[in-house]
Amino acid sequence: MNVLVINCGSSSLKYQLIDSETEAVLAKGLCERIGIDGRLVYQKAGNDKEITEASMPTHKEAIQMVLEALTNDKTGAIKSLDEVNAIGHRIVHGGEKFASSAIITDEMIKTVEECNDLAPLHNPANLIGIRVCAELMPNVPQVGVFDTAFHQTMPAKAYLYGLPIEYYKNYKVRRYGFHGTSHSFVSKRAVEFLSLDKDNSKVIVCHLGNGSSISAVQNGKCVDTTMGLTPLEGVVMGTRSGSIDPAIVEYIAKKENLDLAGVMNVLNKKSGLQGMSGVSSDMRDLRAAAAEGNEDAKNAIEVLCYGIAKYVGGYVAAMNGVDAIVFTAGIGENVGMIREKVCSYLGYLGVTIDAKANEAMGEEVVISGADSKVKVAVIPTNEELAICRDTVALVK
Amino acid sequence: MNVLVINCGSSSLKYQLIDSETEAVLAKGLCERIGIDGRLVYQKAGNDKEITEASMPTHKEAIQMVLEALTNDKTGAIKSLDEVNAIGHRIVHGGEKFASSAIITDEMIKTVEECNDLAPLHNPANLIGIRVCAELMPNVPQVGVFDTAFHQTMPAKAYLYGLPIEYYKNYKVRRYGFHGTSHSFVSKRAVEFLSLDKDNSKVIVCHLGNGSSISAVQNGKCVDTTMGLTPLEGVVMGTRSGSIDPAIVEYIAKKENLDLAGVMNVLNKKSGLQGMSGVSSDMRDLRAAAAEGNEDAKNAIEVLCYGIAKYVGGYVAAMNGVDAIVFTAGIGENVGMIREKVCSYLGYLGVTIDAKANEAMGEEVVISGADSKVKVAVIPTNEELAICRDTVALVK
Repeated sequence: MNVLVINCGSSSLKYQLIDSETEAVLAKGLCERIGIDGRLVYQKAGNDKEITEASMPTHKEAIQMVLEALTNDKTGAIKSLDEVNAIGHRIVHGGEKFASSAIITDEMIKTVEECNDLAPLHNPANLIGIRVCAELMPNVPQVGVFDTAFHQTMPAKAYLYGLPIEYYKNYKVRRYGFHGTSHSFVSKRAVEFLSLDKDNSKVIVCHLGNGSSISAVQNGKCVDTTMGLTPLEGVVMGTRSGSIDPAIVEYIAKKENLDLAGVMNVLNKKSGLQGMSGVSSDMRDLRAAAAEGNEDAKNAIEVLCYGIAKYVGGYVAAMNGVDAIVFTAGIGENVGMIREKVCSYLGYLGVTIDAKANEAMGEEVVISGADSKVKVAVIPTNEELAICRDTVALVK
Repeated sequence: MNVLVINCGSSSLKYQLIDSETEAVLAKGLCERIGIDGRLVYQKAGNDKEITEASMPTHKEAIQMVLEALTNDKTGAIKSLDEVNAIGHRIVHGGEKFASSAIITDEMIKTVEECNDLAPLHNPANLIGIRVCAELMPNVPQVGVFDTAFHQTMPAKAYLYGLPIEYYKNYKVRRYGFHGTSHSFVSKRAVEFLSLDKDNSKVIVCHLGNGSSISAVQNGKCVDTTMGLTPLEGVVMGTRSGSIDPAIVEYIAKKENLDLAGVMNVLNKKSGLQGMSGVSSDMRDLRAAAAEGNEDAKNAIEVLCYGIAKYVGGYVAAMNGVDAIVFTAGIGENVGMIREKVCSYLGYLGVTIDAKANEAMGEEVVISGADSKVKVAVIPTNEELAICRDTVALVK
């Protein structure tokens, strides 16, 4: 079965066409600057990228161009749209309504809309993609895969904040967690790859990318995660602050003469590794600056690793033990120095690292030493493949 | 030497007169409703409390009444003010200016005033007490003891937030930590009481009261703590939320139609155990409600214990190990159930609890089992005695 995986943002759209039997990516790419001017990137497996500048006033034109590229005579991955058997959409926020992926129906869309309030920038964009696909390919079944769903197994002690309980009851203010598709994919793979007992396993997944989150997964179920009501909470990220004293919001507002939206903009877009270093949100730039003696860049790296280590330590307590610690996503898969620094705090757990194995970049590998009491591994994430699998499971 | 210890708030004042040689409290009490109407509580050691309703338009009249009570012919603890040899004041915020207690001079007061911005409600009140004492007892040396000083040994990786670095450089936005006098007193006592090596010890202090904070103390120096720029951050407290996703500030402001000050008021005064349970901020009331089946009260207790356990786990990672975990302050000293629940997460560290010993209330006792790999103890805090000791050390 061929599954078209779509991740639709407010002015962009990423896609992959995946053969679910072989799990091969037949073609992939993205549309950028939708509603502004428009740019399509398309790449058939084995071919070079094709870049087309073209007017995309709305997501409809963008998706039309994707479908044309996919069925194009010369470089199309398929001959006709009949070969698209299902569509899987990433949806950011499923609130408490969705604890798993779901077939898209009119009623399901209404339920997603009830969660829009919790992700006012993302969910409406996701829904645009769903509606346009339904219009252009009315007979192809569609599935929604939620960033929040995997975390819905968290117990109340992990998802409740220390706030007036009415805020939870009336407004659903609670920890939701994000990157769930990745945490689910990587934790399941960790059980296989490390030969753990699925029903008796304690795994901590460190998804470290431009956005970062950590999750504690016990017996295959998420029991805690660092992101909260929104993806702002938790470890320091590329441009996001992560957790801070909430009173800082007021302090900064006064000092910088900003309103609440202004402070939130700073916390989401001008903070994190970028803001701390004044250099970049990119780990390569940061390491180069640190190597040249930039103290702020050095501190940013130390704060990141120390913060990750504290969350890992906290989740070991949450599960009263740990069998495996797994690193994934851009930084987690590619930066051995970060993995090494994080694990340097964990000697008390009997964690040791094999320096040679830890040189790995982007490959599935055990990086703990033979004598390590906890397995440590790199497992590349693949959210598109996870969406494809969920889609197939529901439409079969 | 007799030391008068003063903790001056905006409309209240607590005091103790301590004989520094025997460390006996000669008299103690408080003034309430200063500037409103006025009420003096005075208790000489061995006597009953005396309560006097009397006009206290300013802190000057309040302190005058305290001094009169202390030297009163009938129930005074001393014969004349000549027997007050030094005064020790609690000061909430010493910013980065004070890493230890300091003799109060005009210059020192100016430096404290530079920190007022960081504690706009507390520091000015503390300074009023200092000025009134200087006026009433001009020849008695005074010492300032800071809530923040003990935490000044934290490394940058522990005190820097994931914010634009200019906020630290220009506005001193960083983690300071509070309850430092208690964390210092209890961690030092833990080293003695548990026969640890001061220069090779890892101690975690859980100060759990109406306000709660946890600190990691390595070789006698604080390396991390849960409270931050303000006392709002960290574990859930009586009425304070503790850490939340900072984006919740904006979400609540919109939902409840509150301005920033309004949200901060909720987070500081209407949240925490009180807000979560809808019952009370008092652990006794909460336990009674939970025993009667109140789910919100049960959840509040679970969130508290789970949150403490995660911070403890995080600090074990921060120090790469732990020798002792110590509970102190109102809840920490008196509620065995909370200590037991927290430690139930820590089996992986080899922590065991002696159920009988853990029945202790308000006494210094080891509560870990004989086989426990980490010592767990209750050590009652005594901030007034700590202030007295620091005062004597500086004026001698």
